[in-house]
Amino acid sequence: MDQHLHHVEEHFSGSDFIRDVVIGMSDGLTVPFALAAGLSGAVDTTTLILTAGSAEIAAGSIAMGLGGYLAGKTDAEHYESELAREKREVIELPESEEEEVSEIFREYGLEEEQIKSITETMKKNPEKWVDFMMRFELGLEKPEPTRARNSAITIAVSYIVGGLIPLFPYFILKHPATALMVSVVVTLIALMIFGYVKGRFTGTSPFKSAVQTTITGGLAAAVAFGLARILT
Amino acid sequence: MDQHLHHVEEHFSGSDFIRDVVIGMSDGLTVPFALAAGLSGAVDTTTLILTAGSAEIAAGSIAMGLGGYLAGKTDAEHYESELAREKREVIELPESEEEEVSEIFREYGLEEEQIKSITETMKKNPEKWVDFMMRFELGLEKPEPTRARNSAITIAVSYIVGGLIPLFPYFILKHPATALMVSVVVTLIALMIFGYVKGRFTGTSPFKSAVQTTITGGLAAAVAFGLARILT
Repeated sequence: MDQHLHHVEEHFSGSDFIRDVVIGMSDGLTVPFALAAGLSGAVDTTTLILTAGSAEIAAGSIAMGLGGYLAGKTDAEHYESELAREKREVIELPESEEEEVSEIFREYGLEEEQIKSITETMKKNPEKWVDFMMRFELGLEKPEPTRARNSAITIAVSYIVGGLIPLFPYFILKHPATALMVSVVVTLIALMIFGYVKGRFTGTSPFKSAVQTTITGGLAAAVAFGLARILT
Repeated sequence: MDQHLHHVEEHFSGSDFIRDVVIGMSDGLTVPFALAAGLSGAVDTTTLILTAGSAEIAAGSIAMGLGGYLAGKTDAEHYESELAREKREVIELPESEEEEVSEIFREYGLEEEQIKSITETMKKNPEKWVDFMMRFELGLEKPEPTRARNSAITIAVSYIVGGLIPLFPYFILKHPATALMVSVVVTLIALMIFGYVKGRFTGTSPFKSAVQTTITGGLAAAVAFGLARILT
């Protein structure tokens, strides 16, 4: 049992970081790649592709990083405000809170007598009662204090790393068409590897994940390329 | 109590849609805006800004929409695989599962006698026992079957709507500098309104949310603008 519980906990503690890397890199590998591909069909030099690509990576990493920061802060505030409310309700509306606990256990087939015995015990320890309501009524876990900041940095850096991969060929090659070909090959390989690793960490089939991730990036790039062709 | 529970449920059922709109529109309003602003400092006509901006919106909406779809599918698969595992464990390792239930209740101060009575009841109804483990040990809720598809559409459409707002001035005005000024004004107003509404729905202070969202978009655009200036 301990091993099992330990396994579950490990799974959860690592998953915030993995989740943030996946969020940042999924978009970082895809959108700058698609944008650069799109512009390759529309311009004659790589300068403008590099300008647009770099501007996109800067904008995307800031927007997504700050987005992650604000989401983390909002989660923390939401937790605190719900905690304050439960603490208040346990004191001001104990009957109604007792009924809420009872509802939860009734759903799982416990007898009224057993439920009564549980609620009596909880009433003796209001702090644990509040903890119980937070986790089992509202499904909220206390967020780590460094979560918002770590999330912002992880997402932003992952976006930048992901975005520089498809853009790299445009730095070293002169002709957009040649750079595009190299970028397509390099990025599709990167998407496959990323999808495979993502699958391993998230528990999906790595091969399926590799295929899905590659198709997403390829499709986005193809549509962006087509649209840029039509518009110029 | 019913009103309270009802309130909680309402909060959760609406929140998937709201969350997806926020995901799509946060980036949609910010990244194309910042990219167009960045390019305004680097090119002489709006044609290329429109091409790059449209390619970005296409790429971003596809990447984020498919990302949302895959995340939804992964959640559903994760739920199913954990469900299968719990069903297996309840049959194959009942003692270990019983101990896991006991652990949960021990944390909240219940007596061994009460816990024993609870686990005995659960063992009589293995289906409810599995439901209990899914929700209270693993913290997983059964995802709605249409979740992945709805999520993809909501995110993609929100991204497109958000992205067209900052790009619109470049469609109707000829000079990038003039279009940029109009785009900045229009988009900052849109970010403020979006941030305000987002705050109302997510339970943060609407004014604080409006300020945070506007700063995020403005900062991303300013950095993209500066970087594009340096690079050209």
